[in-house]
Amino acid sequence: MTDRMIHGADLEDIATGGAVLGTGGGGDPYVGKLMAQQAIKMHGPVRLIDVGDLADDALVVPVCMMGAPTVMTEKLPQGEELTRAFAALEKLLGRKIDAVLCGEAGGVNSTTPFIVAAATGLPLVDGDGMGRAFPELQMVTFTLSGVSATPMVLCDDKGNSLVLDTVSNAWTERLARAATVEMGGAALLAFYPMSGKVAKDCVVRGTLSLCAKAGETLRAARRANRDPVAALAELLGAKRLFHGRIADIERRTVGGFARGTANLSGVGDHDGGTFRLDFQNEFLIAERDGDVLATTPDLITLVDAESGEPVPADSLKYGQRLVALAWPCNPMWRTDEGIALVGPRYFGYDRDYVPFG
Amino acid sequence: MTDRMIHGADLEDIATGGAVLGTGGGGDPYVGKLMAQQAIKMHGPVRLIDVGDLADDALVVPVCMMGAPTVMTEKLPQGEELTRAFAALEKLLGRKIDAVLCGEAGGVNSTTPFIVAAATGLPLVDGDGMGRAFPELQMVTFTLSGVSATPMVLCDDKGNSLVLDTVSNAWTERLARAATVEMGGAALLAFYPMSGKVAKDCVVRGTLSLCAKAGETLRAARRANRDPVAALAELLGAKRLFHGRIADIERRTVGGFARGTANLSGVGDHDGGTFRLDFQNEFLIAERDGDVLATTPDLITLVDAESGEPVPADSLKYGQRLVALAWPCNPMWRTDEGIALVGPRYFGYDRDYVPFG
Repeated sequence: MTDRMIHGADLEDIATGGAVLGTGGGGDPYVGKLMAQQAIKMHGPVRLIDVGDLADDALVVPVCMMGAPTVMTEKLPQGEELTRAFAALEKLLGRKIDAVLCGEAGGVNSTTPFIVAAATGLPLVDGDGMGRAFPELQMVTFTLSGVSATPMVLCDDKGNSLVLDTVSNAWTERLARAATVEMGGAALLAFYPMSGKVAKDCVVRGTLSLCAKAGETLRAARRANRDPVAALAELLGAKRLFHGRIADIERRTVGGFARGTANLSGVGDHDGGTFRLDFQNEFLIAERDGDVLATTPDLITLVDAESGEPVPADSLKYGQRLVALAWPCNPMWRTDEGIALVGPRYFGYDRDYVPFG
Repeated sequence: MTDRMIHGADLEDIATGGAVLGTGGGGDPYVGKLMAQQAIKMHGPVRLIDVGDLADDALVVPVCMMGAPTVMTEKLPQGEELTRAFAALEKLLGRKIDAVLCGEAGGVNSTTPFIVAAATGLPLVDGDGMGRAFPELQMVTFTLSGVSATPMVLCDDKGNSLVLDTVSNAWTERLARAATVEMGGAALLAFYPMSGKVAKDCVVRGTLSLCAKAGETLRAARRANRDPVAALAELLGAKRLFHGRIADIERRTVGGFARGTANLSGVGDHDGGTFRLDFQNEFLIAERDGDVLATTPDLITLVDAESGEPVPADSLKYGQRLVALAWPCNPMWRTDEGIALVGPRYFGYDRDYVPFG
């Protein structure tokens, strides 16, 4: 892959694709898009590079926003704190960081790394640590490769900052989550510092390009009067699970997470019965009349049946006509370690993971 | 005052006096005493110095344990984490610390600074930031003098550590409290780094000596068959509020604090009616038949009517015969700023502070 310059206008497609990979969660990319566009306007475009182009001894640092999507929409974070967290971690590590990495290509964090890349002038690696969105910060392929989440810097919008040094990435999650909840529900992080060599092993490659391509595909299909849902499914290698209307939704916020269940009733001949989606920020389990169709870590997303626009879990409304798509996760997640970290049982569901597709 | 060497045996009296100044809270000094005695056994005695003997440009750092007393008794912390927090803060500040300071002379933290002083060989200042115990970490005279609680290092028993940098001491409390709760209810801190010049302005002087003297006074009175309660009251300049038996106690743990109410019914001719004590870790309000007798920040403590042994709020049991004592707080607390920080209204009581005695 050759380097690609990302301009402000490109963020539109990336944000749309970020919501697709967000699988219902990850936070609305809209907020991050605005901040990234502002940063690019001030500092110039961002160079997207392939992870393979990093020197083995390069220092790469992922950044992300932490918090429940339902809180983020009420509490607009400033982009500046993310750059502050990044700079503080650089100072702490005592050497210059060579490239920015995306922690989570789904949701708001598909766009937040562009803020830091624009502000610092550093290249951004085309890839991430999930290939989608997940609710907890240890849920990255970096963890599978033994990368420590700490030293980590966590900043809030008020000017508070924390440096964490923990005995495991699960502990990083626990302590960062407690701080994030106390900070009002959203915080900005720089974490998982790693070498170029390690990044090549564990980054899910090309996910930011895929986000851009997903947004572009939807736009192009609509312009050409083709079915946007079909075009998107083709790009992702996804299958249609169900076509239906939202019949009811149950939501609650637990420990900083937006949890709940959505039920859809079928539209058309092929989609009888009831389709049920369980979410904890992201859609984690899809069932039809009690049969499991797909589970985490495979990707499940809902798109508007007409426009193909992705619909996050916190925007679901009674009566919406939607198509559920599912497609396979990155193979790194399908290992025993991967399933232990992000499989259905981790989230409290009494289900074994059955690979989708 | 001349320097005084504190040996392991001296910790007995200091711990007893620490429980007196603990005003019902601050955590059982027993745990800290054992750790301090162990540290002195390994490293030698601790030199207690007067704050006036510090050079103006000396660097002084208070240490303490954070957590609810009810948790601490179940979860014995290691002394080593406190020294780890202290060393990490020294490294962060980039210069050698010259003396250890006690954050809170009441409760467990009357003894914890001896652990660090013994392990590092540094002198310990005879004084603290409260002259008693309080439940939140911004509740120190250091705050009244504008000293920032951060940079602060917080460690747990598992090996996790946090560095906090906050916009106010109230925010330090919020974030450190959230982390402490997540860490299992107890954590070890080094914070409020300050110069010798600043320490001379805001340290409550002589409180560790006072702890030692209180323990010694109780022992001496018992040996001489004099009334220990009267001897202690005389030393402290305290008045007897009530002599009675515990009639009922209501307790709950809220956000990491042990809150509740104890009612005593009178013993003897002079103590009719019902005496009520409200506590949030510490005893904060003493009332008799609805009349307020004493409130925070003045000191209220309960001692065994026979032995004069202080009885913490979490050890109160039905039927115990106790004497309630009260005496005036340090004048720094009686300013408007002091009352705003630790007066009855801060704790949610609809009462004005009326200076005791």
